[in-house]
Amino acid sequence: MLSKTAKEQLIAITGKDRFSDAVEILTCYSYDSFLEEAMPEAVLFPVSTKEVSEILQVASAHKIPVTARGAGTSVCGAPIAVNQGIVLCFTKMDKIIEINTPDRYAIVQPGVINGELQRALAPEGFFFPPDPGSMNFSTIGGNVALNAGGPRCLKYGVTVDYVLSMEVVLASGEVIRFGSRNIKDVTGYKLSALFCGSEGTLGIITELTLRVVPCPETAQTLMVTFDELDNTAKSVSDIIGSGILPVAIELVDKVGMNALENALHQDLPTEAAGTLLIEVDGIKESCEREIEKITDILKKNHAVSIIKATEEADRNRLWAARRAAYGVFAKIAPDILSEDVTVPVSKVPEMVRSINSTIGKYKLKGGVLAHAGDGNMHPFICADRNDKEEWAKVEAAFKEIFTDAAALHGTLSGEHGIGLAKTQFLPLVMDEASRKFLTTIKRAVDPDNILNPGKLV
Amino acid sequence: MLSKTAKEQLIAITGKDRFSDAVEILTCYSYDSFLEEAMPEAVLFPVSTKEVSEILQVASAHKIPVTARGAGTSVCGAPIAVNQGIVLCFTKMDKIIEINTPDRYAIVQPGVINGELQRALAPEGFFFPPDPGSMNFSTIGGNVALNAGGPRCLKYGVTVDYVLSMEVVLASGEVIRFGSRNIKDVTGYKLSALFCGSEGTLGIITELTLRVVPCPETAQTLMVTFDELDNTAKSVSDIIGSGILPVAIELVDKVGMNALENALHQDLPTEAAGTLLIEVDGIKESCEREIEKITDILKKNHAVSIIKATEEADRNRLWAARRAAYGVFAKIAPDILSEDVTVPVSKVPEMVRSINSTIGKYKLKGGVLAHAGDGNMHPFICADRNDKEEWAKVEAAFKEIFTDAAALHGTLSGEHGIGLAKTQFLPLVMDEASRKFLTTIKRAVDPDNILNPGKLV
Repeated sequence: MLSKTAKEQLIAITGKDRFSDAVEILTCYSYDSFLEEAMPEAVLFPVSTKEVSEILQVASAHKIPVTARGAGTSVCGAPIAVNQGIVLCFTKMDKIIEINTPDRYAIVQPGVINGELQRALAPEGFFFPPDPGSMNFSTIGGNVALNAGGPRCLKYGVTVDYVLSMEVVLASGEVIRFGSRNIKDVTGYKLSALFCGSEGTLGIITELTLRVVPCPETAQTLMVTFDELDNTAKSVSDIIGSGILPVAIELVDKVGMNALENALHQDLPTEAAGTLLIEVDGIKESCEREIEKITDILKKNHAVSIIKATEEADRNRLWAARRAAYGVFAKIAPDILSEDVTVPVSKVPEMVRSINSTIGKYKLKGGVLAHAGDGNMHPFICADRNDKEEWAKVEAAFKEIFTDAAALHGTLSGEHGIGLAKTQFLPLVMDEASRKFLTTIKRAVDPDNILNPGKLV
Repeated sequence: MLSKTAKEQLIAITGKDRFSDAVEILTCYSYDSFLEEAMPEAVLFPVSTKEVSEILQVASAHKIPVTARGAGTSVCGAPIAVNQGIVLCFTKMDKIIEINTPDRYAIVQPGVINGELQRALAPEGFFFPPDPGSMNFSTIGGNVALNAGGPRCLKYGVTVDYVLSMEVVLASGEVIRFGSRNIKDVTGYKLSALFCGSEGTLGIITELTLRVVPCPETAQTLMVTFDELDNTAKSVSDIIGSGILPVAIELVDKVGMNALENALHQDLPTEAAGTLLIEVDGIKESCEREIEKITDILKKNHAVSIIKATEEADRNRLWAARRAAYGVFAKIAPDILSEDVTVPVSKVPEMVRSINSTIGKYKLKGGVLAHAGDGNMHPFICADRNDKEEWAKVEAAFKEIFTDAAALHGTLSGEHGIGLAKTQFLPLVMDEASRKFLTTIKRAVDPDNILNPGKLV
């Protein structure tokens, strides 16, 4: 429990209206989109860097764990206060401070919703490339803390590639700033990259300068079906291997497509063993040229049907089902575990086979959804967590899937993060000395381990 | 001096033929392309990670400073052993271990020359985007340690954007590995970005996995002259502000162009107040479209002449003078100090004016060369370092230039690094708490300060 003194000191900073330790409020901040829950002792809603700094000074003095939180859309448990303490919720630090398209940057507070930033940039003909599935709900601060990805990261890169500068409050309450508004900047260590993806374990982000880019002139989308999953996966590695760089190549298998059709009734290709959604962008001539090359490769790989959409409304219709996937799959069974392994793209066919074989072996219900173009696979299993026997199988299956991905020079997470979900599996991809080095950094920066303890390191 | 024991232990690792403390050899490793010199006590040429690890164990036990070195093309003094100790020269760790274009990566040892990697990738239709001026001589290890840039970084980004994975030997001799072959990887802190640009102060890089990308189908180049420098600079900010993203926009002023013509006799536009070299790439239609838009902007800004080159030989001819610049300028006077400030691109006109006004005020000989499209300016001053009075003016002028850049939200270095050259100026762009944080990281990782002491932090 928070001591009376600590509580009084915290309330003195935010006032009573932005501090709560009422159980009905705390419950709302006890979970994210992963499976675990833990009640914090208080939740605070800071409105300025100064307040965050003062809160950290109190937390540091009393050694109170501090967990930063945006919209709670994390799927790895990153914002769950497993060691109790306080949750700092950033929904009230949601200002877009500056948009400067001539100099190609935007300055935002961490609580800005990704989709809000996109809407503010659109009239200027610019966008912010990272597009996690949660982009209409999740905050930029959360995107940066988890180094979020998304479908179009295939062409445009992930969040860390778009962070120019940061303001961070350290565990001590000290405020530091690094980076600048310049794309080229080698002044000091590249600390924005260290904090991006650090899941709130090194410091609390209070302001971000992000790189933004001009919107492509046009885009074209293909929906392609196959009667063998292997040909679907092979098409992906053949397209990427040919030197074309689409914006996105998404893969949905039969289990996934049937779940989507049952929920959405959109006349989706439920008979197909595998479906690809492929998007290219740029000027019209370049889109057409790439679509032509891609179509050749698809035909060589025995594509059954190829639907092309060039108008935005038609493209959105093709994308609608893919975007709905996570919500739909969550309803197949009481619980869903959607994972996030990544393998080099030439290994996509092998990894898809291996995932299906593992799920089959344990007689579980699941399949594969993938940002296949960059090898980022979301194998998912739907089950009931209260059925201990079934859940043990789910855990055993995922352990095998992680091991198989590691053996293919893959990695445990492409975009979801480590959080609570995967710390135990880090030895599959990092040896002891390398893991120890993560701890060296963490201890130096947060010696009392008050920043999001229990995560990542 | 190295103790007899330390020397024996080091020779036991490399053998006598890859260890030297002969003064004539040490002299060769006492300087880079900056102005300072310092004699190391020994130079070693390791051939494996194991040897590097063993050398670091000896260095750590005896607290001997260790400075890593590639080809010595650094222009900030980064590989100069100012605290003596040993230089680890990586020219014998120069193997390209694997090129895998279907999965878009290359694995190299740090001593591979950037240009060698380009030549190995070309037959596959791929390239490695970072192209520092030194690319035909400098090593990839050095490029990564300094987070090198280059002209085409405007479109393609800098070195850190292409480092997927690293093997690093720590001060203790421990070997760590992080990252993977996957573009999307959020497993643990983003340490490859922390080490990239760390100038050998945190660890010694022994292997790199780099992202490589398909070559564009074609490219087109413009050489454009102006009779006012202000219009030259304004064209740059107008092009970038319009949403076009060329591969490169290089700016050369009259002083620079005349120096180039005097040395090269290429019938260069010596009358022009400013010259731009602009390159676009992609498919033919897209290049043509962009060149058309750019030409409109240039005309609006009163361009005097516009020469277009589409064939590779013609493009190379336009580029030849620009590529020769550093070598040529070095001959104008006994010494040249070429600096590396970066400002947001809308501030390019103001920064160019300010540089010229400062150089004029001190009655010095110099000018501006710039990767202008990303705001990365190389103001240069040619003088005689033995003329104490003149050199004091050079130093005063650069201090003003740095201060002006900082005031425009610019930064001290876009691509050259901090090294010996600029540690003293860090307070212009980083406050005390932020600088202290650099030291926190350095102390945690290298507690005895044996890794390239005296640099960066």
